[in-house]
Amino acid sequence: MRVNGTHYRTVWLEGSTVRLIDQRRLPFAFEILSLRTYQETAEAIRDMAVRGAGAIGVAAGFGMAQAALAAPDGAVDAALARAASALRATRPTARNLFYAIERIEAVVAGPAAPAAKRARAGEAAQALADEDARAGERIGEIGQPLLPSPASVLTHCNAGWLAFADWGTALAPIYRAHRDGKAVSVFATETRPRAQGARLTAWELAQEGVPCTLIPDTAAGSAMRQGLVNLVLVGADRIAANGDVANKIGTYQLAVLARTHRIPFYVAAPTSTIDLGCPSGDEIPIEQRADDEVVWTEGLTAEGRPARIRISPDGSRVRNWAFDVTPAEYLTGLVTERGVIRAELRAIAELMHA
Amino acid sequence: MRVNGTHYRTVWLEGSTVRLIDQRRLPFAFEILSLRTYQETAEAIRDMAVRGAGAIGVAAGFGMAQAALAAPDGAVDAALARAASALRATRPTARNLFYAIERIEAVVAGPAAPAAKRARAGEAAQALADEDARAGERIGEIGQPLLPSPASVLTHCNAGWLAFADWGTALAPIYRAHRDGKAVSVFATETRPRAQGARLTAWELAQEGVPCTLIPDTAAGSAMRQGLVNLVLVGADRIAANGDVANKIGTYQLAVLARTHRIPFYVAAPTSTIDLGCPSGDEIPIEQRADDEVVWTEGLTAEGRPARIRISPDGSRVRNWAFDVTPAEYLTGLVTERGVIRAELRAIAELMHA
Repeated sequence: MRVNGTHYRTVWLEGSTVRLIDQRRLPFAFEILSLRTYQETAEAIRDMAVRGAGAIGVAAGFGMAQAALAAPDGAVDAALARAASALRATRPTARNLFYAIERIEAVVAGPAAPAAKRARAGEAAQALADEDARAGERIGEIGQPLLPSPASVLTHCNAGWLAFADWGTALAPIYRAHRDGKAVSVFATETRPRAQGARLTAWELAQEGVPCTLIPDTAAGSAMRQGLVNLVLVGADRIAANGDVANKIGTYQLAVLARTHRIPFYVAAPTSTIDLGCPSGDEIPIEQRADDEVVWTEGLTAEGRPARIRISPDGSRVRNWAFDVTPAEYLTGLVTERGVIRAELRAIAELMHA
Repeated sequence: MRVNGTHYRTVWLEGSTVRLIDQRRLPFAFEILSLRTYQETAEAIRDMAVRGAGAIGVAAGFGMAQAALAAPDGAVDAALARAASALRATRPTARNLFYAIERIEAVVAGPAAPAAKRARAGEAAQALADEDARAGERIGEIGQPLLPSPASVLTHCNAGWLAFADWGTALAPIYRAHRDGKAVSVFATETRPRAQGARLTAWELAQEGVPCTLIPDTAAGSAMRQGLVNLVLVGADRIAANGDVANKIGTYQLAVLARTHRIPFYVAAPTSTIDLGCPSGDEIPIEQRADDEVVWTEGLTAEGRPARIRISPDGSRVRNWAFDVTPAEYLTGLVTERGVIRAELRAIAELMHA
């Protein structure tokens, strides 16, 4: 990804230190966190310094590698088991987190010298990050023909660079099309409560020079009814075997609105987001986060100082589901690094066993 | 309305001073503004110190009365014409504003002594306020049988006490049912960008002791899909002759979601919100407000100081439609002070000529 002209990944490993862009500070400050232990990495995932399905998967993989690198010879397996447990407990919904941990567990399973296990864990974690970035790039290539020219795409939350190691999913076809010279513009929904659309997507698109219009979440239906949207393109945190999709709260209602207005609704995700062990959306655990995310908000004062303010009355009762489930029937298609498929059991099974 | 146990109206006239609850400060401060001229009253409407269809109608009526009261004997008609023009220019969408101005214009039309015109303007403005409050009370009585017991009602923005002289529209049946002992709870959508749901509805309901759960606008569809909503009840800023409804941005998408989930969707409004001169929603002017409403937000710091912060990156392009139009076909019914009717041309014409 480009930040002020320089290429970055969202999260990477330097020696045994995980480094990542602190997404809690964007768009007002661009800061790189250094996490020296898997515990610090787990905390960064839980606190959403890093967020987005792919990015937390990559961070978890690096966290596993950190645990192996730090463990004395006799305790590599035990350290990996502790790290896996700590990392799994950070956030429940995104499939990529569990996928990454399972991948590292697989390569270090069985008897091997401690040094070999350390090396395998580190290589597997790096491979995961590289695959994630490549999958995003492929999703861009595969998805961009879905965009007419000119195209007005509505997206929700942030499924861009910042949600993955690089490129992203929902935004990858937009970046690809834009670089290829197509006229693409984006409606970014604010995505309350954490406002990843306003804070991250609008910022990412500006870095890449893609025209972006920010709208409140309340305005999505009106924009569609006015004929201003050609296509809805969103990411996913977990896709069940039947094609049901868990993604950021608010995705479901955009899918309903897209269907009402006969606007194509695509979900873009790497195959690492698909969970064949999960039969349908009903079995996807939906994280509930703290009321404070709704009641308080962060930004900059007119003088440029960071500030946090309360925006609803004291004692408000709040529900804060972090995700919702969009039934497969609402999807026009699923854009993966292996191709565009229908969101249904057989097509997904074939894709995963291809 | 009850505020800390005391009964208030949202806006009232004392001598020639318009007094109103400053809704820009709620819920963090309860302050009464004193507006000594119609120009100050117009500015309070434009700047949304007073908002809500009925309340701005009542304020505009009092503004007309202020103009008449302040004018020297030879200039009453001219002052009323200037005030009408200034007040009409404040906000374009809500019908009640224009209705109120027309009502005052009608009673002062033709030859009469200046003192008589002043008296008529003042009496008509007061009558408007009283009618508005009574209409809300009647809407409460007429609407409350629509609520099952227990009832979970989802509402949007604020169509309560604060949006009218008293009682409100969408919240009036809720208050009536609650006072009558029905078990009623409310989901209040935050209603970005100005967050009237979080700031006003949650506060109003707390004052009245009605259980209220605040949700981000992104969570409405998920709440419905989870079966947590029995009924959607919202207000209106203007209702066209064919039953199309202009109301706060986000209303339309709630109507689409309610239909998808087979949840009754009612619009509550006094007949003063119905505009027979407007054939359909296509002819309702939709106010576009400043980008700053989306980009900046206000609240209290942890230390209790009022603060205003920027919540999206510098230079974001924004669309900020204040209202949207919900086609009549989405309404289960229209709850007015004269009864519940279907939202369609003939039923509305009969209601208005009854």
